Amino acid sequence: MKDKNNFGNWILGQEVHSGNNTFNTFNPILDRPISGDYYEATPEEVNQAVDAAANQFYEFSNLSGDRRAEFLEAIAVEIEALGDNLIQTYCDETGLPAGRAKGERGRTLGQLRLFAAEARRGAWQMPSVDLSIPDRSPLPKSDIRKMMLPLGPVVVFGASNFPLAYSTAGGDTASALAVGCPVIVKSHPMHAGTSFLVASAIIKAMQDTKMPKGVFAHLNSMDYSIGQQLVKHPKVKAIGFTGSERGGRALFDLAAQRDEPIPVFAEMGSVNPVVIFPEKLELDLDQLVGELSDSIMLGTGQFCTSPGLIFGIDDDLWKSFFTQLGSALDHRATQSMIHPSLKKAYNQMKSKLTQHPDLTSLCTISEAKRPNHVAQTLASVKGVDFINNPDFQNEVFGPFAILVSCKDWEELDCAIGCLRGNLTGSIMATEDSLSKRFSLVDKLQHRVGRVIFNQVPTGVEVCASMQHGGPYPASTDSRFTAVGNDALLRWVRPVSFQNFPESLLPEALQSKNTLCLIQRIK
Amino acid sequence: MKDKNNFGNWILGQEVHSGNNTFNTFNPILDRPISGDYYEATPEEVNQAVDAAANQFYEFSNLSGDRRAEFLEAIAVEIEALGDNLIQTYCDETGLPAGRAKGERGRTLGQLRLFAAEARRGAWQMPSVDLSIPDRSPLPKSDIRKMMLPLGPVVVFGASNFPLAYSTAGGDTASALAVGCPVIVKSHPMHAGTSFLVASAIIKAMQDTKMPKGVFAHLNSMDYSIGQQLVKHPKVKAIGFTGSERGGRALFDLAAQRDEPIPVFAEMGSVNPVVIFPEKLELDLDQLVGELSDSIMLGTGQFCTSPGLIFGIDDDLWKSFFTQLGSALDHRATQSMIHPSLKKAYNQMKSKLTQHPDLTSLCTISEAKRPNHVAQTLASVKGVDFINNPDFQNEVFGPFAILVSCKDWEELDCAIGCLRGNLTGSIMATEDSLSKRFSLVDKLQHRVGRVIFNQVPTGVEVCASMQHGGPYPASTDSRFTAVGNDALLRWVRPVSFQNFPESLLPEALQSKNTLCLIQRIK
Repeated sequence: MKDKNNFGNWILGQEVHSGNNTFNTFNPILDRPISGDYYEATPEEVNQAVDAAANQFYEFSNLSGDRRAEFLEAIAVEIEALGDNLIQTYCDETGLPAGRAKGERGRTLGQLRLFAAEARRGAWQMPSVDLSIPDRSPLPKSDIRKMMLPLGPVVVFGASNFPLAYSTAGGDTASALAVGCPVIVKSHPMHAGTSFLVASAIIKAMQDTKMPKGVFAHLNSMDYSIGQQLVKHPKVKAIGFTGSERGGRALFDLAAQRDEPIPVFAEMGSVNPVVIFPEKLELDLDQLVGELSDSIMLGTGQFCTSPGLIFGIDDDLWKSFFTQLGSALDHRATQSMIHPSLKKAYNQMKSKLTQHPDLTSLCTISEAKRPNHVAQTLASVKGVDFINNPDFQNEVFGPFAILVSCKDWEELDCAIGCLRGNLTGSIMATEDSLSKRFSLVDKLQHRVGRVIFNQVPTGVEVCASMQHGGPYPASTDSRFTAVGNDALLRWVRPVSFQNFPESLLPEALQSKNTLCLIQRIK
Repeated sequence: MKDKNNFGNWILGQEVHSGNNTFNTFNPILDRPISGDYYEATPEEVNQAVDAAANQFYEFSNLSGDRRAEFLEAIAVEIEALGDNLIQTYCDETGLPAGRAKGERGRTLGQLRLFAAEARRGAWQMPSVDLSIPDRSPLPKSDIRKMMLPLGPVVVFGASNFPLAYSTAGGDTASALAVGCPVIVKSHPMHAGTSFLVASAIIKAMQDTKMPKGVFAHLNSMDYSIGQQLVKHPKVKAIGFTGSERGGRALFDLAAQRDEPIPVFAEMGSVNPVVIFPEKLELDLDQLVGELSDSIMLGTGQFCTSPGLIFGIDDDLWKSFFTQLGSALDHRATQSMIHPSLKKAYNQMKSKLTQHPDLTSLCTISEAKRPNHVAQTLASVKGVDFINNPDFQNEVFGPFAILVSCKDWEELDCAIGCLRGNLTGSIMATEDSLSKRFSLVDKLQHRVGRVIFNQVPTGVEVCASMQHGGPYPASTDSRFTAVGNDALLRWVRPVSFQNFPESLLPEALQSKNTLCLIQRIK
């Protein structure tokens, strides 16, 4: 970002900074801070942003779906218009390659347009109509109609590992704006520059499409206190977060302790178990080694769907798979983490686990040489030891996986039964072999958000049937998804209208149905 | 219940009692305990009940919808077969009239049959299908399908004010069983006898329809510790509760503090604001007085939808309404509360509020004479004082209402803007007068679960479009309803199946669609 060295907060369409504290971002490849001061939001600025959002919530939510769609589409256009400046800033702040940055930008634009389409379509309102039965005995039935309404101002926390698709104009923001919830983004300090650029695109789109100016705000902070203040603010009605279990749980706890508890959609830790059947190994050993080593290394393992636990039956074939996977990982070049603090956390978590006497480390790369690179690591543990030690289920955020060698199916079954909640669970099997051990699907489906047959867990399709969210600690609310069309259901709740005359009903509930929605009519 | 004087707990289809502590129920009309000892469940019995539920969860959830429907329908038949014994026990334990008992039994049977129909229909599984696009560029799209799955064992707390419809075989239990969640009921100690009878009907139905024996258990307790143990049990996955804000919040807090937090659907306090327009008063003053005094007195005000706050513009007509409503209530005979403890709580809460200097008490009945009766009470407060004192929004459970006299529309608008969450909000207006002040609907709809035009809040229709649940403190999760078909959505969460061959997909997701469900196909 040339010619600009001070970056404020965006409130009511203006870039402001009333505080004095600033911070910088960091280039992990060059291993040095990036010039440019980001002003920490002040508590007063938090209040201004939330008040503006609350004040303009009704106006924003009463706009037509078409109007909000125009806004989302304009955001996509303005982000595209940022061009290479955005890609360069993204790469500088994360050490990730330009291809990844461009891919993620594409996904972000796709999501904005997807939720624009959902805003236009309006199906999220789910109109339900119970017609009156005046002559019902013993009591008449009133006309009762129900639809979804937006919750109110939403706070979105930028994700360290998705500077575009799950940050400032990412899935949380786009889905909340689509249904009429104003959004306050707390930018992720690791990529405050990327976030600032995207925020400026949103502000421009907001102005161009004549949206109320309080519907989007953007606050910088290194400090936890600003995030805490946002979660505790009585006018904030829901939280979107993607990050660590510790961070998500802290926000969840704060929100649960409010006078009025509010929903927190924290998408957190997941180790994404993969179960490999001997029948599949026999058929596709080489392919599995290739796919799994790619999946473990993808984005330096900084994905919530990175495979962290691989289960198998301990026979000769398994031992061979085991050796080959270790060797495949050994032969890969090390990669950079997004930030020195993530490298530090990876090494700490990894060494804590690998020092465990029950765990055999299979890594041969002792230490990554280049700055902020980490050594990919494979370890192994016996099924019985896995069962007896829940620590082996802790997420090591980065390219780390544990092979769990079970002595027989009974032990494997028991190990799966011990799993905490996860985003995904993959089964590598032949159709025939899985059909003979189908109780495994029963067990797995009640512990994950997505059950996968013969594919690796990385790669999350943005579509209507995607469930990205699983039992705790995968997410704090397994009943909703963070990815795909249904992500907007996180920001709404049903409200009934009883005995209302047609002219006073919300448009989605009117019998004349000018919005052409599918109404459930009883 | 003749010839039986000891009542145990129902676990695995057996009546058991391993503890020594017992308690009795109470007849509020005769003002004396009812003979019959109820054995407190022990901590070991809690564990047995939860383990049994968890062990048989997969088997139960894998049954066809038809099989679970048979179970629910058999429960209805067995409850009907309890005949007058059930009605007499209900009346003895609550002081409520037989008409109410029979009406509530009818509603309970209706709910069981409604959820049986939903179990048969299976639409709650909401199948969603994204077909694969193998030749998509740059990456192929996998086949991804999503459906709802049950959460696991559910604990239901019986409600003091709905011994049948929101207790043992009430809406929570019926909706949870319908989707395949085993249920453990903690009976309400005020009507342990009614609950025991209903539980025995469920057990009989469970045996007759050959259900796994762990899918229903029934535990007695006067003590909070049993309920707490249930909420904290790692194998319990969701909670249904109807009762006070204090009780619901305590359970919510416990559940939020678990290692794995679980959803709590607590339907709690509500004061159900009613706004009366001058134009409506002019037209229908007498009718409003009649309807509102009936609504306030219904069930001695022991309904979550009892109208507790009535807002109007302070003019001559309002003063006249005010006097007439007071007088109408004065002329009604007092009624009994369900239990001495509820009478005590009513009188305490009422006297705390009516001692407030800003509040004018309009009650002329100083004290109810008959045992466990309470004096219905109307009080009034100025709009400005209501705005400045949140205590006036506290629920007084019983026949108590406050008239809020606002000096003008601005003050009324501000008072509505100060409201905490409520189950309902009613507007008594002409169509024309409301259309001119439509911003009031905007304000109210974001503070309640059901907006009502020209009807009183009492009387909750069990139907698809009912939303019974509102922003906190009306309920702990405003995104779900406790009443109506959609109540079963509280007990499910979505799970995706990726790249599964047709033969291994759950039936609801198969393309051959033998269940004839509406599948969302992309």
